[in-house]
Amino acid sequence: MTSPEKIWPEKIWTAGLVVIGDEILSGRTHDKNIAQVASWLQVQGIRLAEVRVVPDVEDRIVEAVNALRAANDYLFTTGGIGPTHDDITVDAVAKALGVPVTIHPDARALLERYYADKGGLNEGRLRMARVPEGADLIPNRMSGAPGIRRGNVILMAGVPHITAGMLDALTGKLEGGAPLLSSTIGCWVAESEVAATLREVETAHANCQIGSYPFFREGRVGANFVIRSTSQTDLAGCESDLIGRLIASGNEPVTGGI
Amino acid sequence: MTSPEKIWPEKIWTAGLVVIGDEILSGRTHDKNIAQVASWLQVQGIRLAEVRVVPDVEDRIVEAVNALRAANDYLFTTGGIGPTHDDITVDAVAKALGVPVTIHPDARALLERYYADKGGLNEGRLRMARVPEGADLIPNRMSGAPGIRRGNVILMAGVPHITAGMLDALTGKLEGGAPLLSSTIGCWVAESEVAATLREVETAHANCQIGSYPFFREGRVGANFVIRSTSQTDLAGCESDLIGRLIASGNEPVTGGI
Repeated sequence: MTSPEKIWPEKIWTAGLVVIGDEILSGRTHDKNIAQVASWLQVQGIRLAEVRVVPDVEDRIVEAVNALRAANDYLFTTGGIGPTHDDITVDAVAKALGVPVTIHPDARALLERYYADKGGLNEGRLRMARVPEGADLIPNRMSGAPGIRRGNVILMAGVPHITAGMLDALTGKLEGGAPLLSSTIGCWVAESEVAATLREVETAHANCQIGSYPFFREGRVGANFVIRSTSQTDLAGCESDLIGRLIASGNEPVTGGI
Repeated sequence: MTSPEKIWPEKIWTAGLVVIGDEILSGRTHDKNIAQVASWLQVQGIRLAEVRVVPDVEDRIVEAVNALRAANDYLFTTGGIGPTHDDITVDAVAKALGVPVTIHPDARALLERYYADKGGLNEGRLRMARVPEGADLIPNRMSGAPGIRRGNVILMAGVPHITAGMLDALTGKLEGGAPLLSSTIGCWVAESEVAATLREVETAHANCQIGSYPFFREGRVGANFVIRSTSQTDLAGCESDLIGRLIASGNEPVTGGI
């Protein structure tokens, strides 16, 4: 690790995520990809800067993709790359990138093998070989259809376990910065009692951020305080300061969180 | 694909949702509010048109709030209305609306009562009485702090069961249109086998949309086809057409979904 004391001035790599699908906006399907992509990105040293959930409408996808890819180093999408009429992500992203849609020969070959004993390719299945021109494939061990990568734009499946397989295939392949580290201190205290303390500790430790996450369990209120930093040293200093002040105010901090 | 504007001639009421919080973007917390708000809106006859998840950064909140409130009839936020330093939603929304932040006297009175036997008001707790000028309160039976409504902008808690209480308090109070009805047909078939059928049925029923949601369970592939319409008659016609065509192609439709 280089210069652990001076972390924040270095380049912070960011990603945007566009979650595509009427089923999320109708409440029918509970999204699991935001949390999964977010956690995976942390390990790659890339921060998820914004998520937009949009319907299966081409113009809306184009708008979100263009806004988030302009603002971030990477742009991920989930959903809408299957075989049916409502799977329009490839067309929308190609439009956003200003390139035509083509059949990727390797994707076609993959799908031909996958469906060889399942009735062969048909029009719907062949849709899954379509990519924005110039794209590479992301292997998918769970089903025949691959994910798609074109430069810093990455298109993944909507079904969470297939998305997971595609993320796995991308692990270690994207350039990122220092991973964001975190440490959690729990406490059986109303966050409103220690709000001033949290603010003071955060102010005293410039390379750290503190989030406060209240809960109500077993009939009691409590909160977890999550300290984040790219520096292990700064993180440890902030943690020990917070623990000391919580004890001084008569509270009992729980290292690792509650 | 037919555009929603073409399908439903009557006014469609829409809402945007801004989910505020570093904890969602870090993957630490799995969001539950998108699905909960989406399902609740359906019943009110309001469609969730877009969701943006943004960090605890004022400018980012202001930008998302202004974009989604301009594009929709209602704008909801979740998160960031608690007592700690990272709770900046009220300030950001006031800035977006171009109004100052004031202490709401009823909110202050509520909090004074709630904390009377818990150490009384302090600076952090008083933060929860701050509202954009001109706002009304949304009752919250779960804790002292109320939600906030100013015109078509509605600020709710991030903790899902508190959000639920605020939605409950708003039930039936927002103007909306005809609720979107849905009907689900399941089938143990690869969606790629019936992609052409789905497209044909959707085309034949102009007031209906069909979404296809594949799954892999018990070692078999299947899919649920969700038909949506504001008309019960059109929905039933489309459903019976799809069932007929699935049977004709040798598949066994499961009414209500799998």
